[in-house]
Amino acid sequence: MEQGKDRSLVSKVMDGLVSGIVEEKYGAILPPQDVLSKEFDVSRTVMREALSMLLARDMLDVRPKVGTRIRPMRDWRMIDEDVVNWRFRAKPDPQFMRDVIEFRMLIEPRAAAQAASRASVSEVASIREAFEVFKTLAPGDAGYQAADELLHTRIVHASGNQFFQQMAAIIRGALSATHPMLSQKPGAWEISVRTHERLVEAVERRDPKEAEAAALAVIDFAADEISREFSVEMPNRR
Amino acid sequence: MEQGKDRSLVSKVMDGLVSGIVEEKYGAILPPQDVLSKEFDVSRTVMREALSMLLARDMLDVRPKVGTRIRPMRDWRMIDEDVVNWRFRAKPDPQFMRDVIEFRMLIEPRAAAQAASRASVSEVASIREAFEVFKTLAPGDAGYQAADELLHTRIVHASGNQFFQQMAAIIRGALSATHPMLSQKPGAWEISVRTHERLVEAVERRDPKEAEAAALAVIDFAADEISREFSVEMPNRR
Repeated sequence: MEQGKDRSLVSKVMDGLVSGIVEEKYGAILPPQDVLSKEFDVSRTVMREALSMLLARDMLDVRPKVGTRIRPMRDWRMIDEDVVNWRFRAKPDPQFMRDVIEFRMLIEPRAAAQAASRASVSEVASIREAFEVFKTLAPGDAGYQAADELLHTRIVHASGNQFFQQMAAIIRGALSATHPMLSQKPGAWEISVRTHERLVEAVERRDPKEAEAAALAVIDFAADEISREFSVEMPNRR
Repeated sequence: MEQGKDRSLVSKVMDGLVSGIVEEKYGAILPPQDVLSKEFDVSRTVMREALSMLLARDMLDVRPKVGTRIRPMRDWRMIDEDVVNWRFRAKPDPQFMRDVIEFRMLIEPRAAAQAASRASVSEVASIREAFEVFKTLAPGDAGYQAADELLHTRIVHASGNQFFQQMAAIIRGALSATHPMLSQKPGAWEISVRTHERLVEAVERRDPKEAEAAALAVIDFAADEISREFSVEMPNRR
């Protein structure tokens, strides 16, 4: 299982490309592939593979007629979404669920508070819009889970902090793991709509403290169900 | 820059392997490569590449004479350390530094509090040990930065939360970005040793509140310097 020669050559080329990018050698658009192949003295196949690895990490963007654009560094994907998805595909154990809830309780309330302080007018509107879709759907409806994920993602995104934004992939994984549990509980839907609404309104009113408390209430509700289901003690509410 | 046929075949094999792993089809040790190649009906080269991608993500472990062990899921690397390292290699801009500090202020105090509550006796000892090495070194000494990174990593690890533990890669990146700034400041070293000692002692005394406050003080000190260097407003201390 040693890495082959090609593999280490691809890594070397990736590293060289990234060095050029962070030293702002290329400007906004990368030179064409054949120029880069010559510059690095490698085959087009190797160069294509190195570029596709950077593309998969949201570091590049291919635009027809423009070329390969270098994406803003804040978009570079620090989270390996494959691993996150695989991790949430496994049967959850109590400790994993505790850790997930603990992590959400750390990130989401702070992100919500910052969204209330920093979100642009169009970000606030996009959060409201996501909520309006969410509240028309019931658990089990097509698109319900996607709507919930979009709402949480937009709030975290509106925090303006690129590290918080990167964590959205983990939050989506967490939501997908808890959905099947919550959707079976009678009355859960009404409570869920109400707590999410409180959060959205707090962001609209630019009230960071209330947004933080509301985000915590949203997670608390999920945490209660999970602690019942898994007989695991949940973190202290703060 | 389309992905080649081989590439998508490797992805498919990876996905199949992961499905088998999360469904606990293989037990603790993967079957030999040639058996797996036959099972998936792919060449040994494709299987080797798929396995090496999982290996690089800390999902597998090659043990001589034992075989390829499946690692505990909590170790699976959700953070793409290449991207993290590349991101921190670029010249920092003020917003990036603000986001980094904000992220550390979110993660590290909570992780320290949980370390104070949950660390095992040997984890507490390993934190003390890392501190004892750290305090004998001065900025500029070989190993100074590595010692600082080890101390922070061990504290975050002792939180027991696998998501917090995964964030250690980002914290190490943040430390590497701020080191050059802090090491030039007169008196910085003494203050740094003192604040880190306060943190270590709080973990030893099993005092979560004090550990949280001490961790925040460690970051505050860095934040002050960075806000001077970059003329950027830092997040509120909480």
